[in-house]
Amino acid sequence: MWRYSAPLREMQFVIDEWVGAARDWREIPAFASLDGDSVRDILAEAARFAEDVLAPANATGDREGCHWNAGQVSTPTPFPAVYRQFCDAGWPTIACAEEDGGQGLPQLLNAVFYEMCYAANHAWAMYPGLAHGAYECIRNHGTDALKATYLPKVVSGEWLATMCLSEPHAGSDLGLIKTQAVEGPDGGYALTGTKIFISGGEHDLTPNIVHLVLARLPYAPAGSRGISLFLVPKRLGADGAGPVNGVYCDGIERKMGINGSATCVMRFDAAQGWLLGEPNRGLAAMFVMMNSARLYVGMQGLGHAEAAYQNAYRYAAERKQMRLTTPPPAGMATPTGPAVPILMHPGIRRSLMQMKVVIEAERAMAYWAAHLLDLAEHHPSETRRRESHDHVSLLTPIIKAMYTDNGFKLASQALQIWGGYGYLEDYGVEQTVRDSRIAMIYEGTNDVQAIDLVVRKVVVDGGAKLKSLLVHLSAESVQAQECGHRVQRLAQRLHQLHAEIVQITDFVSESAALDPEFPLKVGGDFLRLVGLGLMASFWCRAARVCEPRATDDRFSQEKLSSAEYFFDSVLPETNYRLELLRAGRCTLPWMDAPL
Amino acid sequence: MWRYSAPLREMQFVIDEWVGAARDWREIPAFASLDGDSVRDILAEAARFAEDVLAPANATGDREGCHWNAGQVSTPTPFPAVYRQFCDAGWPTIACAEEDGGQGLPQLLNAVFYEMCYAANHAWAMYPGLAHGAYECIRNHGTDALKATYLPKVVSGEWLATMCLSEPHAGSDLGLIKTQAVEGPDGGYALTGTKIFISGGEHDLTPNIVHLVLARLPYAPAGSRGISLFLVPKRLGADGAGPVNGVYCDGIERKMGINGSATCVMRFDAAQGWLLGEPNRGLAAMFVMMNSARLYVGMQGLGHAEAAYQNAYRYAAERKQMRLTTPPPAGMATPTGPAVPILMHPGIRRSLMQMKVVIEAERAMAYWAAHLLDLAEHHPSETRRRESHDHVSLLTPIIKAMYTDNGFKLASQALQIWGGYGYLEDYGVEQTVRDSRIAMIYEGTNDVQAIDLVVRKVVVDGGAKLKSLLVHLSAESVQAQECGHRVQRLAQRLHQLHAEIVQITDFVSESAALDPEFPLKVGGDFLRLVGLGLMASFWCRAARVCEPRATDDRFSQEKLSSAEYFFDSVLPETNYRLELLRAGRCTLPWMDAPL
Repeated sequence: MWRYSAPLREMQFVIDEWVGAARDWREIPAFASLDGDSVRDILAEAARFAEDVLAPANATGDREGCHWNAGQVSTPTPFPAVYRQFCDAGWPTIACAEEDGGQGLPQLLNAVFYEMCYAANHAWAMYPGLAHGAYECIRNHGTDALKATYLPKVVSGEWLATMCLSEPHAGSDLGLIKTQAVEGPDGGYALTGTKIFISGGEHDLTPNIVHLVLARLPYAPAGSRGISLFLVPKRLGADGAGPVNGVYCDGIERKMGINGSATCVMRFDAAQGWLLGEPNRGLAAMFVMMNSARLYVGMQGLGHAEAAYQNAYRYAAERKQMRLTTPPPAGMATPTGPAVPILMHPGIRRSLMQMKVVIEAERAMAYWAAHLLDLAEHHPSETRRRESHDHVSLLTPIIKAMYTDNGFKLASQALQIWGGYGYLEDYGVEQTVRDSRIAMIYEGTNDVQAIDLVVRKVVVDGGAKLKSLLVHLSAESVQAQECGHRVQRLAQRLHQLHAEIVQITDFVSESAALDPEFPLKVGGDFLRLVGLGLMASFWCRAARVCEPRATDDRFSQEKLSSAEYFFDSVLPETNYRLELLRAGRCTLPWMDAPL
Repeated sequence: MWRYSAPLREMQFVIDEWVGAARDWREIPAFASLDGDSVRDILAEAARFAEDVLAPANATGDREGCHWNAGQVSTPTPFPAVYRQFCDAGWPTIACAEEDGGQGLPQLLNAVFYEMCYAANHAWAMYPGLAHGAYECIRNHGTDALKATYLPKVVSGEWLATMCLSEPHAGSDLGLIKTQAVEGPDGGYALTGTKIFISGGEHDLTPNIVHLVLARLPYAPAGSRGISLFLVPKRLGADGAGPVNGVYCDGIERKMGINGSATCVMRFDAAQGWLLGEPNRGLAAMFVMMNSARLYVGMQGLGHAEAAYQNAYRYAAERKQMRLTTPPPAGMATPTGPAVPILMHPGIRRSLMQMKVVIEAERAMAYWAAHLLDLAEHHPSETRRRESHDHVSLLTPIIKAMYTDNGFKLASQALQIWGGYGYLEDYGVEQTVRDSRIAMIYEGTNDVQAIDLVVRKVVVDGGAKLKSLLVHLSAESVQAQECGHRVQRLAQRLHQLHAEIVQITDFVSESAALDPEFPLKVGGDFLRLVGLGLMASFWCRAARVCEPRATDDRFSQEKLSSAEYFFDSVLPETNYRLELLRAGRCTLPWMDAPL
């Protein structure tokens, strides 16, 4: 049956060696006292929560779904109790500042915790998943009064939060939103309008819900320059025991997946709210929240892939079909009986290897990005802070889009390993496929991510910032030149790939100057190319780190051969993307209606 | 809202010009009298049935699903009436021989009809979808007595049929099946065993159901050489009004999709049956049925892609977001207002073009394969019959695997065009994604198809038969050399691609001789490579046919620019597959358990 086990050894390897976070933590006063044992303890505790509390509620959440009745929403039976355990254990507070009642731990650990949560129960994890972004948003943009009322409750998890952006006619194009905010006599505002696709807009997990709402002030400029951000609570009053606000849940959506997460239609009817940040600067304020939300959506893709992979592996080790065409390698017993575990068949092994090497590189890169968030905020050197910020701003759209594409693709690839059983509800993997599909859409569709990367972050400076990120590829390839021949071979390929990506970055900038449509056509190919390049540099590093001890350590042996497998059998996609990028200059016909 | 419109003009173009079926029909006595008008009338009638009767029952079928109660199965409310209309209109009889009560029309028309049915309502079309295969099977392997009782009822649609292959421990590996058949005193057999994943094993559409069941005779050799095929009716007696047989439906599965199709667990308890064909030769007899079934599963993939595409196109023409970065081409009005239809955005146009050029080439190739079935059976020249048979036997696994992979992939790509709305049940496309996923699994998983192609049909004769199929690529490239420069450019690329595929075919055979695991690792890449090559030759032909009239005919213009788009922006995948095939010689590590 479907279950989840946190890959603790992999996670620890990434933190300790692949990213090497502790080295940087020692330079940051807030984290200097963090030792290896505490990290290990936190992760072990997180694993127990994900495995024993969250995962068992995953299938139930899917089957029961949420129920709407006269504006009230009930979540699946086990969800409220799971949420209480989550708060009681202090999980909401991990990465919040100590002065706000948080534990002041690195974002990195919060990201690892959420990888586990998303893998174990994506729908449930949607409820607290936005809380950290809301915390950052209120912390950075709220008045002292707002902070005093809302920050402690959000940090403790006592109240949950939402992001209210989309309206029926305004999805990717937030410039079209119509919700109105009118200033009242007391400095507050009255908000009126309808928002859709609001995850956790209404539920039975917390007595109050803090909505962060985009709306227009009277006479605001048209488009995205006329949008302001407001804090609108479900219940008013300093302790949330005041009157009910004019916030109504008019219904919840029936969806392909994440059925345990209530996707709400929210109506604001002269609801009382307070401005967060400057008038008409709401999108900028919201993007603080959005950027970390996008990174966490990327973690969802990673979680889906990991959960699908480890369940598929377990099934493949149990299910027996067919005989072997060649004997197994030395040291492995030749199986007897009419059929062997399908794990021994080359096609299945290949499929599992493809998943494994993608998942592990994704994990390394995601933890690195989360670590960069910590460096951008806490590192004493301003240069390191700025550089970390620039890097993470490039990594965010890549992680969001590439990981969620892969989450869906690898979940489906895993399903295939079950054959017909994979299509049945009983085995859990079809739920992973359905759940994973939303992550390609929300928090900015993956097409929007590609445009964000190419148009706003690459073409805009002729690729300067990207090239400074890509220096990691060449630096890694130089370091790996010192190693044995197996690693050197990878380093040479990485060196060449670095040159190819730099060259095509110039080609993209030049093409965009000739034709503004160009980056809109091939943004997705460019995003994947850069993502694969970064993964290659991570695999090269793993090979470099593991090679010296590969002779007598099985874990290191496997990392080295995984790195080789990635380079030989996954990395060819870069040539394909390069070819598609060059083809982006070809004509894209305008289409007639098909019928 | 989701709906389906049969792309009649496209279908007609394929039959008339892309495949040019009528030219061959004139050489076949049985089809010589078939004229263009009758074909047009049949397709128009089929379109009305698919659009007005089947499509409206699609979402209902998904939502209601099937219900099992004490061994009885009820299908979704509209399904039985739809089935009566299907029979009353004579659709089951189209491609059956006149001497059996059929209309004696080409398989090709039956394939076109089923493309529509699968696009309009996959789950419903599963019920009659296996009837033609069962007809062929009984016709070729049944005794006169069996034929007299069962053929007319199956032809008319009065009774439906199933294929009972899988058992809980025997899916891809049918050699493991355990169901027993013991000969009785009357020449019949008593069958005992449990079969799973039986589509339409029990339902309320017909009073009797004809099961074709794989089982073992006593003392049969172990493995796949000891399997026999039996006909086991739900009810006994010449008119199906005799006693109920020992056939029990013990339950139906809860699935990711095709909820309107009952997937049954069937228990045979000393059920009375009759041998079809020779003892222990059941797999061969069943494969007659399986091969045409595989082609029809490929048509499901095509249907899913077409339905998703046309609905996505319609949505993209209505939904408005964002402004244009460049003015639309001459002749198209520049839209006013705060946002333009998303159809005008480059990313959306590109996505729709990718779908369009894949779907149209798939349709051409699928109809060609169905036409080859007709030639293989009816053409007066033995050479043509044999050649057609060889071609279709190579095309079958390609069509089954490539089309169903694409069906799922393109349905998901279409869903993305809706953004968040695509994830909701209301818009229908998420159902298409869920429904399409099963087609990659059943009738032999797509991995089994790849092995079938590479091991059983290519490596076995050093690629001789495949190369004779590939002659179509070079022949097409030679013919296209005579055309204008736009087509010539495509012809040159096709010429080169032909050489590349021939070369890698030799590489595959050589590698398989060195390492029997090689074809099992890269079969899927080889299958896709050959499939893309065939699609390219079809696009080259369309360009050649359409170029002379492209100056003043919009339809022909679009075909020509679609052909160019396919070559420039889809065909690069061939280089990727070639690279993966070459990488297939690299080591595939044996994996330890992930945890």
